[in-house]
Amino acid sequence: MATTSIINTSRIAIVGLGQLGGSLALRLGEIKCRSLYAISRNESSIKDALDRGILEGGSTDASDILPVVDLTFICLPLTASIQFVKDNIDHFRPGSIVTDVGSVKGDIVRELRHILLDKGVYFIGGHPMAGSEKSGWSNCNSKLYQDAVVFLTPTPEDEPIAIDLVKNVWQNIGARPIEISVDRHDKTVAYTSHFIHLLSSAICKTVFSGSDDEAHELACGGAYRDTTRIASSNVNMWTEITKYNHEFIKNALADFKDEINSINDYLENKNWQEIERYFSDAKSKRDQWFKQ
Amino acid sequence: MATTSIINTSRIAIVGLGQLGGSLALRLGEIKCRSLYAISRNESSIKDALDRGILEGGSTDASDILPVVDLTFICLPLTASIQFVKDNIDHFRPGSIVTDVGSVKGDIVRELRHILLDKGVYFIGGHPMAGSEKSGWSNCNSKLYQDAVVFLTPTPEDEPIAIDLVKNVWQNIGARPIEISVDRHDKTVAYTSHFIHLLSSAICKTVFSGSDDEAHELACGGAYRDTTRIASSNVNMWTEITKYNHEFIKNALADFKDEINSINDYLENKNWQEIERYFSDAKSKRDQWFKQ
Repeated sequence: MATTSIINTSRIAIVGLGQLGGSLALRLGEIKCRSLYAISRNESSIKDALDRGILEGGSTDASDILPVVDLTFICLPLTASIQFVKDNIDHFRPGSIVTDVGSVKGDIVRELRHILLDKGVYFIGGHPMAGSEKSGWSNCNSKLYQDAVVFLTPTPEDEPIAIDLVKNVWQNIGARPIEISVDRHDKTVAYTSHFIHLLSSAICKTVFSGSDDEAHELACGGAYRDTTRIASSNVNMWTEITKYNHEFIKNALADFKDEINSINDYLENKNWQEIERYFSDAKSKRDQWFKQ
Repeated sequence: MATTSIINTSRIAIVGLGQLGGSLALRLGEIKCRSLYAISRNESSIKDALDRGILEGGSTDASDILPVVDLTFICLPLTASIQFVKDNIDHFRPGSIVTDVGSVKGDIVRELRHILLDKGVYFIGGHPMAGSEKSGWSNCNSKLYQDAVVFLTPTPEDEPIAIDLVKNVWQNIGARPIEISVDRHDKTVAYTSHFIHLLSSAICKTVFSGSDDEAHELACGGAYRDTTRIASSNVNMWTEITKYNHEFIKNALADFKDEINSINDYLENKNWQEIERYFSDAKSKRDQWFKQ
């Protein structure tokens, strides 16, 4: 199957025009995929997308769209994604493929894969490593996925052709789809993103605890600004992510606490050589990652 | 004393042409202060600054410069700052003023104030909230201090005229000098900056612990990038800062650990309502600071 043909032959629906779904719609519109549809509770986003000419159709009612599409991208928060599939299970076209963009894959794949498969619909979990602390249709950007890693979490029993189709759509829009197991994915993102969101919030709470907020406000500079940027993210979304991935997040937090305890020991013992080694080792790891 | 006259009448020396000293030199050159001199171990930085026409003179030997200036900005790492004053104590002109840009004020002020005062030289501690993870003359920028808070830590016994002169130079280059006590300063920056550098390094070490670096590398995105930017900072400088401010940093780390323990309790108890409240509270604090 040539990679261009998928975009040229498939009818694609996007469910949810938030930052992730909306940016996907803008990009698919830009590369002129055959037929693009959107489902959203937000009529004004749909109207705007239709006005811009990137959609063949849009509706607030999923039953208008799902029966006619080959591939559905669910771009909703985690609980809403699961609920959407359950509420609309009879509208998906048998033989079609459903994928998502949720940040945690365990419960989504466990819940959705079998109920969709019972209806002859394939589910391939997906998670693009993209997005910012901003949300909503107004913060969409057709370049959001350029060169972004997109994890796909098929199970060994899934149809290779379904996996390939999802993979090829991501490749067509300039992203880098990579297959990974569900558990390895969830553990990985707990460490590289999810637990860091909790830390970032904890920094805000530590710095502005009320003890001397006036002076602290004056003294916050680039270090505070950058380490707490993600604490400005969508609260509901991150509460859900934390809930769905709490076991792996607890592992990451425990490992992090070990690091903090080591640092504390060095401080207690005035072991500046170990502090220097610690900063140096961290800098090496960060610089090595950054230059990739 | 009119604010412009200070720049027009004082002879100013900058010791060290790293990011902080070099950026100060560029800016003072830009606003054409009367006479600007530089002292640096790095001959090529001095030559470059002379070639750009911002210096009246420069030397690797402090005794060439110190006797003829009214105001000396020491822009060296903490230990080097103290050592520089001790090594050159006989070269400072009696009646002149010395200030610095060090990130921790306690030991600097305690060590330098009285030995300079014994020679009739005034010392006013300073700390501009500026600078990035980059260092050196090549990373200087004349806009570095624009609108930046600059903490000054005079003691109640210091000469008002000395305090005013240092304050006015900072005002002349577009910064916001603010007086604060030494202890309040050191505690404040321990919370708003210093302990965050240790956390940032701890994030690098937790994420790249060797357990699954290959997948982690792919999954690191904006959250990791921004929360660990400062882990790429100068290792020696941050080891010194940690050493000089370790007591207050330990306080901040202890408070932060309390936050992490609360989060861990919420996760253990699957108390998603508290997690949501936590994210929400942190977001409020961060958004409120950011919009200032």
